[in-house]
Order: sequence, then C-alpha cells, then structure tokens
Amino acid sequence: MVGALPGLSENCVTVLPVRPLPADAPQRRIAYDPTRPLARPYMPKTVAFRAGRSTPRDFLEACIETLQRDEPAISAFVSLDLAAARRAADAATARWREGRPFSAIDGMPVVIKDMIETVDLPTQMNSPIYEGWQARRDAAAVLALRQAGAVILGKTVTTEFACGNSGPTRNPYDTSRTPGGSSSGSAAAVGGGMASLGLGTQTHGSTIRPASYCGAYALKPTHGALHVGGLAPLAPTLDHLGVIGASLEDVWAGAMAISRIVGGTPPHPGLAGPEEAPPPRRPATLVRLDTLGWDETPPSSRAAFEDAVSRLARAGVRILDAANDAATAALEQELRGIGEVANDLLAWEARWPLAAYRAHGADQVGARIQDLLERAGRLDAAAYARALADRQRLRGMVAEFAGRADGFVMLCSSGPAIQDHGFTGSRNYALPWTLVGAPAFALPLLAVEELPLGLQLAGFAERDADACAVAGWVRDTLLPTDRKI
Amino acid sequence: MVGALPGLSENCVTVLPVRPLPADAPQRRIAYDPTRPLARPYMPKTVAFRAGRSTPRDFLEACIETLQRDEPAISAFVSLDLAAARRAADAATARWREGRPFSAIDGMPVVIKDMIETVDLPTQMNSPIYEGWQARRDAAAVLALRQAGAVILGKTVTTEFACGNSGPTRNPYDTSRTPGGSSSGSAAAVGGGMASLGLGTQTHGSTIRPASYCGAYALKPTHGALHVGGLAPLAPTLDHLGVIGASLEDVWAGAMAISRIVGGTPPHPGLAGPEEAPPPRRPATLVRLDTLGWDETPPSSRAAFEDAVSRLARAGVRILDAANDAATAALEQELRGIGEVANDLLAWEARWPLAAYRAHGADQVGARIQDLLERAGRLDAAAYARALADRQRLRGMVAEFAGRADGFVMLCSSGPAIQDHGFTGSRNYALPWTLVGAPAFALPLLAVEELPLGLQLAGFAERDADACAVAGWVRDTLLPTDRKI
Repeated sequence: MVGALPGLSENCVTVLPVRPLPADAPQRRIAYDPTRPLARPYMPKTVAFRAGRSTPRDFLEACIETLQRDEPAISAFVSLDLAAARRAADAATARWREGRPFSAIDGMPVVIKDMIETVDLPTQMNSPIYEGWQARRDAAAVLALRQAGAVILGKTVTTEFACGNSGPTRNPYDTSRTPGGSSSGSAAAVGGGMASLGLGTQTHGSTIRPASYCGAYALKPTHGALHVGGLAPLAPTLDHLGVIGASLEDVWAGAMAISRIVGGTPPHPGLAGPEEAPPPRRPATLVRLDTLGWDETPPSSRAAFEDAVSRLARAGVRILDAANDAATAALEQELRGIGEVANDLLAWEARWPLAAYRAHGADQVGARIQDLLERAGRLDAAAYARALADRQRLRGMVAEFAGRADGFVMLCSSGPAIQDHGFTGSRNYALPWTLVGAPAFALPLLAVEELPLGLQLAGFAERDADACAVAGWVRDTLLPTDRKI
Repeated sequence: MVGALPGLSENCVTVLPVRPLPADAPQRRIAYDPTRPLARPYMPKTVAFRAGRSTPRDFLEACIETLQRDEPAISAFVSLDLAAARRAADAATARWREGRPFSAIDGMPVVIKDMIETVDLPTQMNSPIYEGWQARRDAAAVLALRQAGAVILGKTVTTEFACGNSGPTRNPYDTSRTPGGSSSGSAAAVGGGMASLGLGTQTHGSTIRPASYCGAYALKPTHGALHVGGLAPLAPTLDHLGVIGASLEDVWAGAMAISRIVGGTPPHPGLAGPEEAPPPRRPATLVRLDTLGWDETPPSSRAAFEDAVSRLARAGVRILDAANDAATAALEQELRGIGEVANDLLAWEARWPLAAYRAHGADQVGARIQDLLERAGRLDAAAYARALADRQRLRGMVAEFAGRADGFVMLCSSGPAIQDHGFTGSRNYALPWTLVGAPAFALPLLAVEELPLGLQLAGFAERDADACAVAGWVRDTLLPTDRKI
C-alpha cells in the first residue's frame, strides 16, 4: 500500500503543504451503521495486549493500513511521522507484555490538531503565515499523552487558526461532504479508523460538530478541566481542549490520561474521575433541548432525534422539555438568543491574536478572520461586559437544573454533514454547552440518510464523570447491547 | 561610538548569542541620585515634539548613543534592530509634527523582555532550547505598542524562562551587582537610559525587584489588566505583564497605551484610567508593611525606609502599622507565611511548560527549573487547593482595608542590588502584591550606599489609577518638587 499516499515516507517526518482539495482526489461513500462504524476503539483491545494475544504495534499497523489506503481521499493529515509512531508502539508493546503499561491508554494511536504545539512536528494552523513553523515544546496535552505512552501518528488539518478558511479534509463516510470544523482532520482520522484518539479544540463548536459529522465520540470537558497550554489561543474564556475518540471509553481514558499528568488550565485542578470510563448509569431525568439549532434541522434529523428521545423515555427516563416544564421552556428561550453572545465573546477576545496575524497583510488571512476583526471593532468594553453577563445568566439557569435532572440531551449538529467543502456547518447545537462551560459528549448513535449524526449528552460543570456515566447508559440503550462500541 | 558594541550593526537585526558574562567586560560604578537618574523620561518631551522644538528621532538618537556606549558594560540586550527603530522614530516625528500622534506615547523608545513574542526578532528566553527561535506574531502588548507608535529597539535579557539561570546583564549603577531578575535587561536598559519603557513580566518578583535595583519606575498591574497573550506562560494565576519606565508618567502612559488597544487577558476588560497619568493625590492613610522581607533587610535600607515613612507622616498621612493597628498586625503575620504559598503555586502551575522544556534533556535546563519540577512532584491537587485558599485569604485581608486606607507602602527589595551575578536577589518584598494580584508601583526614590532602592506603593485590585495618583503624590513628596521625574 505504500505509495498510495503522495509524499508519504515510511522513515521520516512527512510534512504536507497547505493545499486545496485536489480535483482528482478519490471519491467514496460508505453507509454509516452506528453498530459497525469505521472508527477503531482501542480500550477493548488492552485485555488482549496484557494477555499477549495482540499488541499495540499490531493495532497501529491496522491504523496505518487504513491511513495509507484512505488518506488520499480524506486528507486528514498535514504531517506524519510513521517511523516514530512504530517505535513508540513497539515500546508500548513491550510494556504491556511486561504488565507495566504507563497508563490505561499506553500504545493508543493518537492524532493532534494542528493548532496544538508539538516539539517534533510543525504547527501550521492551516495558514500560510505559519508554513513550516516549528514549536520547541509539546503542548501540555501532547506532553501528557506521550508520558502516558500514547503513539502520536501526526498532525491533523484544522480550519485556518481554528476559525477561518476550511482545510482540504473530507468526510470519511462521504467525500462530497465536509468533516466539520475546525477539528476537521482529527474527527475524520478518528471517525475513519486511522487512529483511536484525536485532540481537537472547541471555541464555538469545533469538537462536537466534527465528531457528529464523522461518526466519532467526543468530550468537550468543563472549561479549563483539560490544560490548554500550547494550544494557540483564540478566545480564552471559550477555548476548550476537546477529545475525539473511537468509543466513549477511548474518549474518557484519553482525557483522564491527560488530566492525571498535566491537570487543567490553572487554576483548574483538572478533570476528576476514574482512570477508565465510569460504569454506565441510568438517569432518572433528562432535559430535552431543541436549542437554537432546531429551526435549521431538517425533518429526517428531527425524526431521528425524536425517536432517540422516545426510546430513552420508554427505557424509564423522565424527559423534561419546553412543553412540560417551565424552567426548560425558559432555558430554550434563553438559548435562542445566544448566537450573538457567542459571536461577541469570540470577536472581542480574539482581537489578539487575530490582529497580530492580519498584521502580516490582509491577503494572508481569510475573510472570516477579517469579519471577526471588523465585528470586534464595533464592540467596546461595555458590550463585552454585557455578553459576559448574558453568559453568566445562562450558566445560572443551567445550574438550577442540578437538583432536578441528570443531564441534557440534544443533537450535536443540525443534521448530518452538509455537502460543502467551503463551510464546515452550523455551530448552533454546540454553542450552548460551549457557553455553559460544562461537559458535553458527542455520541454518534444516529444515522440519517446513511450518514452519522451525533446525539449530545451534556452535564453540569465539574461533573464530567457523572455525565460520562449517563452518556454510557444512553449509548447502551440506543445501540444493541451486544454490539456496543 | 559605532563599533563599541561587538556585533552591533547599524543596518540590520543583530542577534546576540546566549552568552555568559564576559570576563573582560568594562566595569563601572555611578552614584545614584534619585533627582538625577540615568533614566530618560519620555513623556515630558512630547510638548516639545508637538511644538517642533525636538523630535522622537532626536530622543531615540540619545538613547542609541547611551546604548552604544554602555551596552558592552551592561549587556541588557539579546537582539537589536536599530534601523527599524530609526524608521519608526522618523514616522513618529512626522506624526507629532502634523499634530496627529497615534497615542500619548507615539515615538517612545521601548524594549521587550525576551519572554515575549515579537514577529521581527527572535524570542530566545535565555535558553539554548530556544536559540534563534522565531515567533510569527507579536505578543498582544507588543502589537499594541507598535500600533500606539512606540519605537521598539530590541529584546532584552531574561533569566532562563523567567525562573532559571541568570543572564549576563549587569546593574547600570554598579556593574559588579545584579540588575535583578527576571526582567533583567528591560530594567537595566530603562534604568540606564537606553530606552524609556521596557516590558517585563512578574510571576514572583520579576518586575518590582529589578526596577528597584536599576533605578526605574514600574507597574505590576492588577492581575489580568494587561494582556499576557504571547508571553511564554509560567504560572498563569501569577503571571503578570509588568511595565518598567523612566518615570511614573512613562509607566502609566505605556500601560494605558497597551490596554487601550488590546485590553486585559480575557475576561479582564483591561486597565482602566486616563490615557496619561492621573494627577497626584495625597492619601489620608497609608498602611506601612514590613512584610516577610524585613528580617533580611540590612540596617541602612531599613533606615532609608523609616525615613521615607516618617516624611510621609510629616506631610500629613496617617500611617497604620503593626504596632498601632490590629488588622495591619494580622496582615503582617499572614505575609510572613506566604513564601511557601508562592513557591507551591509556582511549582504546581509551571509543571507545564517546565516539564516540556526539560524533555529536551536535563542538561538543557538549569538547576532551579529542575528544583521547581521536583517540588511540583511532591505536591498534589489538594496541596494546590490549599495554596489557592491561602492566597484567597490574603486577598480578603487586603480588601478589608479598602474603606480604611488609600494604599500600602513597603520596600521593593531587601536593600539595593546585591553583589552577585548568579542570583538576582530576594523576591520577598515583591511576593505579597504578586499574590494579592493588585497594583504595585516601584518608585526609585531611595538611595542606599549610593545605589537605587525602590519604595513600593501598592493598591487595591482594579484600582490601578487610584494607586498611580497616590504614587505620584509620594514621589512628589519624597523628591524635591522642582526636580521631580
């Protein structure tokens, strides 16, 4: 298979230039079945590693085979170091054999969004300004993953500075569609089975949306619970490190591996919970939210969501919604107005670094970045203070549910991936919990028009493990239990 | 004078290698007179610029003449771009002539601590790991200074990553002594008259202490009030951008120029106050603090401080101290225990990036960085939580004085610069307001053994302009008014 991927070398770092979508790239479409996804979960295999029946190197080779076959169609990567990955997998293989893995995820193949610094691969942020730019340190999460024994395959495509022009990546289930953004490459690589874990970021919707589109699980944790050091900042009070994974168990173990080593962004002490995913827990009550995304959601996706909620209700969960609960109706009303709040917070907080990037020349940054700077120019400190107060009010309304409900259920995106490569899709379903700053899981349990569509299970701030336990039960309830992934 | 500075070119960027103190460097000692400092205030000259009697280019040339004469003895710089500085000064000259300066500080010569990213000069952090490393953006404060019309001369020596090995810089008043650290080069360059403003940082004592040693004014603002974007992080809840200046007016106008363009670190809206320093205001009551630094302060420095406090009292200020006020006694007691709190916060929060730097090899980082990582290894999240709680209690005690006093007066350092080049001096007088997170001004009003010693005027969080007004009155009261600087 070597040679299928242009420019890919077996023996050294391969840095791919920032490039448009090639016109002659292979096309493909694969029907999405939530019980048989392309994604390649790692955690179920570790029992076999310990028993010597399989190895992390075997697992990595399966990922590489997929990568070499599919990368020409998907374009998930901007740089790769397969030789280093194989050395790391061999070292992990030896540790599992000796019964002394560095962590629960030792040997897990991971990919890193190209907004996040790596000491051994360039960080280019899909911008000509950063072509070939090399950081001299690992970001906090990357350092932690290495120390946990993870096997880093390469850096993945982002939209320009995680908020501008789209990259070349295409959806692993339908190459005519976007993978979502801005964590495009990480979601496509994980959803497409090239790695089990991908680091992403979320400032508006950049982890939950691409996971939904690409058939991957994801966690956008409590704000600050995973250290953002070494992630190029955009809007500090919105920026989250996101974890995309092939299964809920991969996501949780990956997130905890990071937190156990580097903790949260100070002063946050870090994500709390067990090293591996907590046992699934049936919620007594869930809040069903339509959010500001409902109006743009087509009937087929609405129907899939309604069906899922009905199945949860039939399994014994009390569902609060705008029709049967006044507080939920009030929250829905509040959520309909948050688009402008989110845009104001982003524009104001991102003045730096965006203005520093634009100083290279207006032709060096995309139109969306220029639009954000223009929006910022129309704001003042009072407008920013109002947006912060609006967000605080929203957080207060959500926190009021803590005694009444075990979580919130909504879509991750307003339908499956759109047929577009210039636009990475609406952020409207991801914005609410970005602003709330509390945990949200993407669960790729729905299939609409044979494409993945994520269900979002959101929780309360600082209670990420509780939300994970509920998410596990939702996953088990909506998927046939014998095929749970 | 050209050629006096080895490696200095008139026409291009000069990057000086990371180097030890040269054995044959010139020595000098100049008696410090607070009324006739080497520092070169800029703000008083702007009237002449507007009137066409002088120009920013003239001012810059005087700075450059000092730089070329003294840099071989002082070693303040790691990189210089004099040609770019002259172009910027000429542009500012034209704007003042046309009566359209970009800001109050248009044309001001500034220097940038080499922990802070600049798009046109390397950022090397006094570490072999970062030799020749080039950021591709300006830090927020640098971008703002450029947009305000400031003239950037170059990057200045820092201790290794602002917390490790000392650099080669020497004190402008006595080359056998340290300039203090970690903002060594910025303080020496400003105190020595090579520039009017220097950006520094303060995580423990790195702005207030070197300003004190080098005869410079400085502001360590309310935490977050000046944007730290593009400053290499160390301990986010302690890291402050510090502003060192040739006069109180230079410091204030420089800080406000930054804030008016890029604001604070989100969600802080930014430093509030007038564009130029507020008029001096006589405080009714000041709290005199000995802090944990008193025990190590030699008699001559104690006497200078006692004399200054007596003069403030004679000028009509009521002085609260541990002997006459129970709350002050309680605060002093609390302050005696903060050394361990400050070290725990630093060690825990700086695990990343320090561990990422150490990953280059133990021989690539200094002993103090290894010590900090070892200390962090002995801490856990509970110990960190206790340190945060201790700091919060201190903040609460300080805030309680808001109705009773107009500010706090203490030394900036436990005596003048020490005769050492391996150790940059005790941080014990700077630690209190670093932890408090409220504004502190260094006022180089004392001379002890013909060396500068700063008086520290500290205020209440978010009330930086009020503290500046009181600092102005203290300055006017302790210096002969006809020579105020």
